Amino acid sequence: MSTDNTTEASTDTESKCGASTEDAEAERSTETSSKCGASSSSASSSSSSSCGASSDDSDEEEEVGATVDDFDADPGQLIAVGLGPGQPDGMTAKARSALLDAEHIVGYTTYVELLPDEVVEGADDIYNTPMCGEVSRTEEAIDRALAGNDVAIIGSGDPNVYALAGLALEIIESKGATASMLEFDVVPGVPAAQSCAARVGAPLVNDTVSISLSDHLTDMPTIESRLHAAAKEGFTISIYNPWSRKRRENYAKCCEILLEHRDPETPVGVVHAAGREDEQVEIVELQELPELGETDLVDMTTTLLVGNEDTYVWDDRMVTPRGYETKYDY
Amino acid sequence: MSTDNTTEASTDTESKCGASTEDAEAERSTETSSKCGASSSSASSSSSSSCGASSDDSDEEEEVGATVDDFDADPGQLIAVGLGPGQPDGMTAKARSALLDAEHIVGYTTYVELLPDEVVEGADDIYNTPMCGEVSRTEEAIDRALAGNDVAIIGSGDPNVYALAGLALEIIESKGATASMLEFDVVPGVPAAQSCAARVGAPLVNDTVSISLSDHLTDMPTIESRLHAAAKEGFTISIYNPWSRKRRENYAKCCEILLEHRDPETPVGVVHAAGREDEQVEIVELQELPELGETDLVDMTTTLLVGNEDTYVWDDRMVTPRGYETKYDY
Repeated sequence: MSTDNTTEASTDTESKCGASTEDAEAERSTETSSKCGASSSSASSSSSSSCGASSDDSDEEEEVGATVDDFDADPGQLIAVGLGPGQPDGMTAKARSALLDAEHIVGYTTYVELLPDEVVEGADDIYNTPMCGEVSRTEEAIDRALAGNDVAIIGSGDPNVYALAGLALEIIESKGATASMLEFDVVPGVPAAQSCAARVGAPLVNDTVSISLSDHLTDMPTIESRLHAAAKEGFTISIYNPWSRKRRENYAKCCEILLEHRDPETPVGVVHAAGREDEQVEIVELQELPELGETDLVDMTTTLLVGNEDTYVWDDRMVTPRGYETKYDY
Repeated sequence: MSTDNTTEASTDTESKCGASTEDAEAERSTETSSKCGASSSSASSSSSSSCGASSDDSDEEEEVGATVDDFDADPGQLIAVGLGPGQPDGMTAKARSALLDAEHIVGYTTYVELLPDEVVEGADDIYNTPMCGEVSRTEEAIDRALAGNDVAIIGSGDPNVYALAGLALEIIESKGATASMLEFDVVPGVPAAQSCAARVGAPLVNDTVSISLSDHLTDMPTIESRLHAAAKEGFTISIYNPWSRKRRENYAKCCEILLEHRDPETPVGVVHAAGREDEQVEIVELQELPELGETDLVDMTTTLLVGNEDTYVWDDRMVTPRGYETKYDY
């Protein structure tokens, strides 16, 4: 089972494990100066948006250009499709058919490159951007739909997990358009937490939390407060975006908070670059996490799965009991 | 987009929306006296377990029979497969091929009935139980694998979300077998939270929590404490197993706790019987939840998606902002 970062990995030295393409790109855009490499497999572009306005600095405001009034055509449909882990076999049949029905497909280059041939061949146009801002790419998708095309905007994982379903709706609104006008729909996918959990057994079978350590869009005090609450209450915890050069201290703080509330021997599943050549899947103890921050095992391609008080390791698997053992004799 | 309860629905007056077949059956077994209707599409059964020991009362201990020593054969493989929403088109290609590779398929009748024809026709044997306990069915799957068959045990949603991945590992251990011996693997699926979220737009795109209101395996004080923590910390909250005749007070308490911490007008996505004839998808305000408990809208087939402080409703969709609006101008 591979996770989303599989795809990111093919072009990025520091890419994102999890469902959040946006975060990964935001990270990069704050860490690197990059050129916009937007490309379209056909010359025609129905969009009036300028791609990559946010590439040089994500904090620089990105102007959204066209509004609904700039388009005369009857709008097409816009569907946000979750690819799941990223490999074609991690995609649902519903996602595949949504892509086959789409006239235009818009997405991050490395996801586009993973699309099944029949999907690529069936599309009238594929717009992919390697390093552009998620906002401009999402606007591109919306503009193409407003121009009368049926458009699928793709991302790994699920569109509801640190992903683009919300951004699409926000930009549609900002353009004076409506979701209904575009028959906006969401096709769910397997989130990275589930993809990674499957690799280490059954770490998440009870009440669970997912928290991103990226403070690009959520401030660190809020993230810290959520970590405290989750660790105190016995939730299992999936941690997205655990480490980047710019956020060493977020990772250190996270480890500190978890160790404040949980046994140092609490099992933690560490899934790095799942499905890639440099994939590493390890089950470690919570007390080992801090020192792992500076190793290749933990970076933006890693998802951490933190067990709760009952989680144990057996035969190289993490097991978080549901509580059956209190009801049944086996 | 349908959710897991689609399948439950076809046989149950009160079935479960979400990834937890187990919980749904536990609920039923505590609420109804039922006969074991285990059936196998071939006469041969390699299992020595007695099916349905827990049907009359889930609190009655269910003895797990055979141990690894009772089997002479070279063990086959056991794979826990998440079907996703339940409909064939919600399944990943990886799940489908895992089912096609399996010699025996073990699962809850209503999921088995939804399997694609090619999967059913390709299997040597399909063991399905309409009202049996999840423990005996899981043991059946393990016994068949220990007897030398390649077995897939199926469930809706994801095997890591209130589901059977953990139970399978616990029972394998109890039998003196090992996960490695059975090459135990997990194939993830789309959880109900994601399936239901897609129906109402983008309610879960930030840090999020999932909590089950079933106190069959987790005590109510723990559930209440987790609800307080999640509501206080601005997580969006997916609530599984919100209401049953036996647990009216759990639902009432949950509403009370949420209202203690969140604005009465906080949007809540209520997805009832998704994908079924009696499907209802409504976006309500938190203050309306209490009165909905006694209506047909909220039962074991419903998943509640509670927005955070920033969640708003626009054009009949729930939108939980990621925070882009603080970084970009659109």
